[in-house]
Amino acid sequence: MTQNANPGLFLTFEGIDGSGKSTQCRLLRDTLQTAGRECVLTREPGGSPGAEEIRRMVLEGDPDKWSAETEILLFTAARRDHMERTILPALDQGKVIICDRFADSTRMYQGLSRGDLRATVDQLHNLMIGREPDLTLLIDMDPTKGLARAKGRQGSEERFEDFGLPLQQQMRAGFLALAQDFPDRFRVIDGDRPIDTVAADVQAHVQNALASKAAS
Amino acid sequence: MTQNANPGLFLTFEGIDGSGKSTQCRLLRDTLQTAGRECVLTREPGGSPGAEEIRRMVLEGDPDKWSAETEILLFTAARRDHMERTILPALDQGKVIICDRFADSTRMYQGLSRGDLRATVDQLHNLMIGREPDLTLLIDMDPTKGLARAKGRQGSEERFEDFGLPLQQQMRAGFLALAQDFPDRFRVIDGDRPIDTVAADVQAHVQNALASKAAS
Ligand SMILES: Nc1ncnc2c1ncn2[C@@H]1O[C@H](COP(=O)(O)OP(=O)(O)O)[C@@H](O)[C@H]1O
Ligand SMILES: Nc1ncnc2c1ncn2[C@@H]1O[C@H](COP(=O)(O)OP(=O)(O)O)[C@@H](O)[C@H]1O
Ligand SMILES: [Mg+2]
Ligand SMILES: [Mg+2]
Repeated sequence: MTQNANPGLFLTFEGIDGSGKSTQCRLLRDTLQTAGRECVLTREPGGSPGAEEIRRMVLEGDPDKWSAETEILLFTAARRDHMERTILPALDQGKVIICDRFADSTRMYQGLSRGDLRATVDQLHNLMIGREPDLTLLIDMDPTKGLARAKGRQGSEERFEDFGLPLQQQMRAGFLALAQDFPDRFRVIDGDRPIDTVAADVQAHVQNALASKAAS
Repeated sequence: MTQNANPGLFLTFEGIDGSGKSTQCRLLRDTLQTAGRECVLTREPGGSPGAEEIRRMVLEGDPDKWSAETEILLFTAARRDHMERTILPALDQGKVIICDRFADSTRMYQGLSRGDLRATVDQLHNLMIGREPDLTLLIDMDPTKGLARAKGRQGSEERFEDFGLPLQQQMRAGFLALAQDFPDRFRVIDGDRPIDTVAADVQAHVQNALASKAAS
């Protein structure tokens, strides 16, 4: 699973809870499909039958069912399955992959929230996943506003959204720092604007990425 | 999870299928308990509630449900949980852990049977597990005889025992090579003798290990 030159495009959305990732993923999928481009909308943790099974196993237990290290291993197993069974085959077919959260979320959530495990997360990623997205859209916004939005939303899973404001502030800063560390693939988008305004920025970045992929 | 000086003793049994590991584990447990020594008899994959859940997830699917790499990640997650929840706490309480298969089986089975993944297995082990047993008893025997024994046994799980003779020969050679690579912790025992004769050798090695642990 090294960085191959696939004809497809591998996009990920990242950002704190409530920033609008899932909303923008769906809108982008609709726009691209209307324009005749084949897309796969997927998410993490999950995104393939095996990975969804691992996701359920992790999310169903009580919070200390797994240690942080075991959880990182399980998420890496799920990501490996998702890459092998969903992402890479679709890329090989020239499709656009739109993935709602990916490895950067593990870097932030498992890397920050449960002890300082960022180095472990990175080493596991390099050993077992390797590949990074072509483009990562970071929807940035004030966590106070994001949390208010997320609370208004239905059907949220407990374990992964029960982070308080101070941790969300740390995550926001962490995501922005990641964007600076990987400027080639990251684009930061201000999420505190109307949905359509955010969507227009998303589309502009994706069109650029599609154009430069086609040119290369 | 570095190599701490625990008062307990961490023993593992390894060897091809049918060599008599589970039989010897039980006999050793009985002997030590009769002598008043607290023991924990455990096994891999599994050995803690979380690890057993992962074991079921891996064993229940059809053989190509998971790639070799995903399977190694899932086993490493199970082993991490088993270490944290079962093995290390018992060692801290001064108990003898008798573990039916451990990391050496992953080195052989996943490292050999599904592509040449030995390096990946070792890197994952070093990153996420680290600790090796104090003593590993390798029950060595001709796979032809081991397979005949294993077939006579009831209730075997399908996926992990459906290896043909040539692969079992490779495993045997691989285990013997491991024993040469780690002479400090490995003892090779000829398994093609009556159960009690094998058990006497097992006990002699364990008594030595307990004595040198007590002296150190
Ligand atoms: N730009 C926006 N302005 C106002 N509300 C938004 C905006 N984007 C999303 N929302 C709403 O906020 C909530 C959280 O959005 P969602 O896309 O689920 O966020 P995320 O997936 O990042 O957690 C939803 O109810 C959604 O309709
Ligand atoms: N030394 C021995 N001689 C003859 N039969 C044995 C011996 N050790 C074990 N067996 C029998 O062989 C079968 C396999 O033994 P088992 O302990 O389950 O092996 P393993 O756990 O290594 O697969 C069992 O039916 C067991 O009773
Ligand atoms: Mg979402
Ligand atoms: Mg057995």
